[in-house]
Amino acid sequence: MHIEILCTGDEVLTGATINTNFSHISQKLGDVGLSVRWGTTVGDDRETLLEAFLLAGARADAVIVNGGLGPTVDDLSQEIAAKAANVELVFNEDWYRRMEEFFTRRSRVMPASNRKQAMLPEGAELLDNPIGTACGFALDIGKARFFFTPGVPRELHRMLDEQIIPRLLARSGRPGVSVLKRFHSYGIGESRADSMLAGIEALVPDGSLKLGFRAHYPQLETKLTVRASDADEARRKLAPVEVEVRRRLGNFIVAEDEEKLEGVVLQALARRGASLAVVETFTGGSIAARIAPLPGAETVLRRGVVSRDLAQVYASVGMDTMPDAEVTPELAELVARAARSVTGATHALAVLIALDEGADRIEFGGNICIAIATAQEAVSRKARMLGGREWVRIGAAEMALDCLRRTLQGLPIDERVDFEKA
Amino acid sequence: MHIEILCTGDEVLTGATINTNFSHISQKLGDVGLSVRWGTTVGDDRETLLEAFLLAGARADAVIVNGGLGPTVDDLSQEIAAKAANVELVFNEDWYRRMEEFFTRRSRVMPASNRKQAMLPEGAELLDNPIGTACGFALDIGKARFFFTPGVPRELHRMLDEQIIPRLLARSGRPGVSVLKRFHSYGIGESRADSMLAGIEALVPDGSLKLGFRAHYPQLETKLTVRASDADEARRKLAPVEVEVRRRLGNFIVAEDEEKLEGVVLQALARRGASLAVVETFTGGSIAARIAPLPGAETVLRRGVVSRDLAQVYASVGMDTMPDAEVTPELAELVARAARSVTGATHALAVLIALDEGADRIEFGGNICIAIATAQEAVSRKARMLGGREWVRIGAAEMALDCLRRTLQGLPIDERVDFEKA
Repeated sequence: MHIEILCTGDEVLTGATINTNFSHISQKLGDVGLSVRWGTTVGDDRETLLEAFLLAGARADAVIVNGGLGPTVDDLSQEIAAKAANVELVFNEDWYRRMEEFFTRRSRVMPASNRKQAMLPEGAELLDNPIGTACGFALDIGKARFFFTPGVPRELHRMLDEQIIPRLLARSGRPGVSVLKRFHSYGIGESRADSMLAGIEALVPDGSLKLGFRAHYPQLETKLTVRASDADEARRKLAPVEVEVRRRLGNFIVAEDEEKLEGVVLQALARRGASLAVVETFTGGSIAARIAPLPGAETVLRRGVVSRDLAQVYASVGMDTMPDAEVTPELAELVARAARSVTGATHALAVLIALDEGADRIEFGGNICIAIATAQEAVSRKARMLGGREWVRIGAAEMALDCLRRTLQGLPIDERVDFEKA
Repeated sequence: MHIEILCTGDEVLTGATINTNFSHISQKLGDVGLSVRWGTTVGDDRETLLEAFLLAGARADAVIVNGGLGPTVDDLSQEIAAKAANVELVFNEDWYRRMEEFFTRRSRVMPASNRKQAMLPEGAELLDNPIGTACGFALDIGKARFFFTPGVPRELHRMLDEQIIPRLLARSGRPGVSVLKRFHSYGIGESRADSMLAGIEALVPDGSLKLGFRAHYPQLETKLTVRASDADEARRKLAPVEVEVRRRLGNFIVAEDEEKLEGVVLQALARRGASLAVVETFTGGSIAARIAPLPGAETVLRRGVVSRDLAQVYASVGMDTMPDAEVTPELAELVARAARSVTGATHALAVLIALDEGADRIEFGGNICIAIATAQEAVSRKARMLGGREWVRIGAAEMALDCLRRTLQGLPIDERVDFEKA
């Protein structure tokens, strides 16, 4: 099936808005085994829109159009869709009532301009939008089925999942459901993960399991997509594969599905009634900033301390100053122990970094020393990272949070990761 | 002039990579008064690439193609360009030597696969890439001039600025230069800024000045673009306008051009040999994290402290605990004074936030109290912000850094901003 995505709107065309809707749609389709063949971006301009609709309608089997369903004069999707399909716009009484209820629930009066959102091309199939006033719809133009979606990301996401993907799967001759399972890992690159998971697709002998990766430094996402006749069957097929992925990627898995590393760390601390102190240098507060705003962090993150000056680091945790001390794992352990003691936290994480000298460049690196102190002990590791100031900073924050996760889960913290320099 | 952008590559088409190159190109062209009419995205597939090249060549006057110039087998731009233009690929000796030098300078041997990058369509005009091995080139396909650019962002950016935009301006019959001046402000929305700058374009009577905005919460960017026969003339035209924009937007301007708010704050502190302590609660370290990684911060950012627990905040700055104290500007001043005293910093910034209760929602807000202590005094302000947890957090961090900037520049810190709830 030849699928296209057609994004509309001056904001996207001029680059004022980065087009994340396009990548979201394409990824989501890819996750269920549908691939996009062509993308088009045009502005809020009648002539160009019509040309784009007709071209896509002549090429594709299915087209997802994003944007242009709003109440303002520059929202033209319904009008041009009707023109391209050679039908009239007709007033949809049902959707108009839905909009009125939408405003009533919010104790507001619906502006007259919203009436426009209930004008749909004759014969269009309505695609429900339970969280907004922009009505999605489907319509044939040329030889393609067009699916019109709102530009507001959360409305698009829901309509895509609930309305459009099932229809596309049915059209592609592959009815049933597609379920996605995601593992987030830190420390292994895509090619290493690929070889660690060699042969995994064969665990579902009917060929309905697909393995994929998405790398976004410093994490790697491993995706399993399975097709089945219903959700129960999908879960049954996935269950043994999930167990095997956990076994093979093992300690490197930091989170699954919607979880995030910082959330996993926070929950592990909260579950045991523990609390945390964090001491940062070049990471500058970015480790604390990932934990502190989370719901529940107010009782767990006891204190974060940041300084680029080691003398201040010592002072902030009540240590005597140590002139000329080198940044070592042992020093990081001393700092972590002191931070734990001065804050009364059950756990303390210290991340000391000795940066290279000179201007930023791709070979610019840093020596990172990470220590974690608990009531029982202090553990530490070191690593050298390269790739410029930002990569070192981001990589050090990730490794530090991951060391904390490993400690909380009883795993070794010094396994070699692919991002460290040998 | 009808301009199109044609992005190639499976990574972009599948959504694995968010297409920031598209928005960069479109914005840059918009900044010099050229507008993009159509965007196309296709994968690394011969048939689709050829179709996309021919379609764009039939529609446009100029097409910027991004990606597909690398050394691997899935990099197809030169091959398909030659096919679409009905010419042969020919070996470019000059570019081959440039690549060899490129590798030699890095003490590496050039892999044989790179030879492919020196194969260009016959008659193509070379577009220099001084920082990579992907050779840009220009070529006529259909009625359009095609400009082929590398996918690596920094290589694309430079080629666009130095090679392509001047050629496009010449082709558009508007020789000369276009100069962009940018002001970054905090605290005024786009519509307020628009009315504050009413009539500003008329300060350049020949109509060559264009005013534009780009809002990215919580900052607003105001852009002045002027066209002139050369850079000197552009600067002469801009000079009085810049003075007037500074006068009208006044205290709200936080930075200009490539500067950032945190950089302006760091420089203002460094210039007077000052140092800084930061105390954060719900902002969680995100204020410190904007300053700490900057070159030079190691001697200025003396200490940052983060806690979601006020008792820990007091302890970390050596204050006696104050049970049941309300979050007020006065309390923030006490904390800032104490932080200054315990760290020995010349300046201390304290940001206390009382968050609303309950689940995150669009009406979720926080009461923000910001104080700055110096040797002479302590100043403070409060504000209520709404919009959900993330908006409150981001807005509070911005307002706090801006209050610090205002203090360092001798400006009032309590001017009303558009993002606070009346």
